[in-house]
Amino acid sequence: MFEQLGLIGCGLMGGSFALACKRAGLVKRVVGYSKSPSTTERARQLGVIDVEAPSALLAVAGADVVLLAVPVAATEATLKAIRHLVTPTTLIMDVGSTKQDVVQAARDALRERVGSFVPAHPIAGREVAGVEHADAQLYQGAQVILTPTERTLTAQLQRARALWSALGCRVSSMAPEAHDAAFAAVSHLPHLLAFALMGAIQSQPDAERLLALAGPGFRDFTRIAAGDPALWRDVLLANREQVLAQSQQFAAALDMLQQAMRAGDGQLLHDLITLASTARARWRLGDYALPTDS
Amino acid sequence: MFEQLGLIGCGLMGGSFALACKRAGLVKRVVGYSKSPSTTERARQLGVIDVEAPSALLAVAGADVVLLAVPVAATEATLKAIRHLVTPTTLIMDVGSTKQDVVQAARDALRERVGSFVPAHPIAGREVAGVEHADAQLYQGAQVILTPTERTLTAQLQRARALWSALGCRVSSMAPEAHDAAFAAVSHLPHLLAFALMGAIQSQPDAERLLALAGPGFRDFTRIAAGDPALWRDVLLANREQVLAQSQQFAAALDMLQQAMRAGDGQLLHDLITLASTARARWRLGDYALPTDS
Repeated sequence: MFEQLGLIGCGLMGGSFALACKRAGLVKRVVGYSKSPSTTERARQLGVIDVEAPSALLAVAGADVVLLAVPVAATEATLKAIRHLVTPTTLIMDVGSTKQDVVQAARDALRERVGSFVPAHPIAGREVAGVEHADAQLYQGAQVILTPTERTLTAQLQRARALWSALGCRVSSMAPEAHDAAFAAVSHLPHLLAFALMGAIQSQPDAERLLALAGPGFRDFTRIAAGDPALWRDVLLANREQVLAQSQQFAAALDMLQQAMRAGDGQLLHDLITLASTARARWRLGDYALPTDS
Repeated sequence: MFEQLGLIGCGLMGGSFALACKRAGLVKRVVGYSKSPSTTERARQLGVIDVEAPSALLAVAGADVVLLAVPVAATEATLKAIRHLVTPTTLIMDVGSTKQDVVQAARDALRERVGSFVPAHPIAGREVAGVEHADAQLYQGAQVILTPTERTLTAQLQRARALWSALGCRVSSMAPEAHDAAFAAVSHLPHLLAFALMGAIQSQPDAERLLALAGPGFRDFTRIAAGDPALWRDVLLANREQVLAQSQQFAAALDMLQQAMRAGDGQLLHDLITLASTARARWRLGDYALPTDS
């Protein structure tokens, strides 16, 4: 389907995308660039990329599809560095967890060429970083949200849909604002809470003993607290208004539970837990999937 | 090792214990009782118990080991109902997630016979309830905390250790107060937070769309929110002082993160996330295990 993938950022997300595209026969050649030359070299040694590029611009030269897999805060500078080689026939995508800031960065950096850029958020990841963990299966079965704007070229949007679908993803579209508001609730706030819980435990003198007693519930609840600090710093800053708004909703719900505990109101506490428990027991990953783009 | 297990409460925890004991050849016969006769009948049909008892007292008749697997709030009434058949040669244990209230209930209910009671907390569970889900493997590899008091008979404590060890558990001991303080941090508070997050999402008009976008991180973070409402109501009420104290530690850590977000202080935010992320990445279930009782 594509001749050459220009991969900017050869970490877990970018490397997994390259491997998946190659395995699915969607690209013939991958030219990769990472800020750290040793990462780029390692990616080539591992067969994640075919050719090392010494700059982002050179990774894009000759590419008909480009994936940016860099921390969201680096999006604008990266797009500026490559804009001279972007044409209306190039498909450019990112994999960032926030979309309003990425869309703004793309407008600022690409200007009249912004139509080639299709903002993408594949809902997949790991609590490990680095090209060593790149996995051709990472995106298999994942949901991918595209957040095109009115300037996005229809042809590129269709190619983006086709590409992610060919990787086994369920592809949906929504506006960048709606995307960020929703992910504040179901992803960014949970990360913030998990960071806060681990921080609170670490700040206690007997942290090690507490951790020794933690069981499977703790393991799953805090798994996302091991996320990459630079990535999550950028996400929480980029989407801070929505995350803080969701924090207030959370604080109100927590306060109700705590009031019931303080008052010894077993009936209210039971009712509040039942609401949460029923909702969670009914939910299954993928069950409520959005209508997929056709 | 034992002739007869008297099982009071034939749900997930009790049923799994009975199955595990039978599989390991630790008991010859299981006599079971549940508040709901249909549960008791179902437990017998499923082979979880051998004989149905019409009352808790009759489940204890002839038993040399008794397991209480009822909501913690029912502990005192249950122990009162069986106390006439408790002798110094009977081993009685519970499986509750809180221990100070259980120890107090045992003192009040069993009085001079309290020495036979060994409070136990196996750190295992599921987000499903009921004897249908009973699983002989549930306790395999789990940590079990015993919280004996100064009145606990040494002989019964040793039998309790031997029994759980024979089921493949790592057995440790600690004081009831220390137990409850620690589990407030690593179990009860995480449950409270997960209930609050699900409650906050459910209270929003677009809850269904939000849930449709939730991914694997959300799945793991909220898994414990599906816990049994009656069980968790009892735990949160029984241990509310410690849970509210841990909530304050959590609130302070969350507030620091939110202040860094509001101030746009990327460095502070990065540092705070790194603290949490490093601690979580280093932690592995069972790695920090407490010294096991010998």
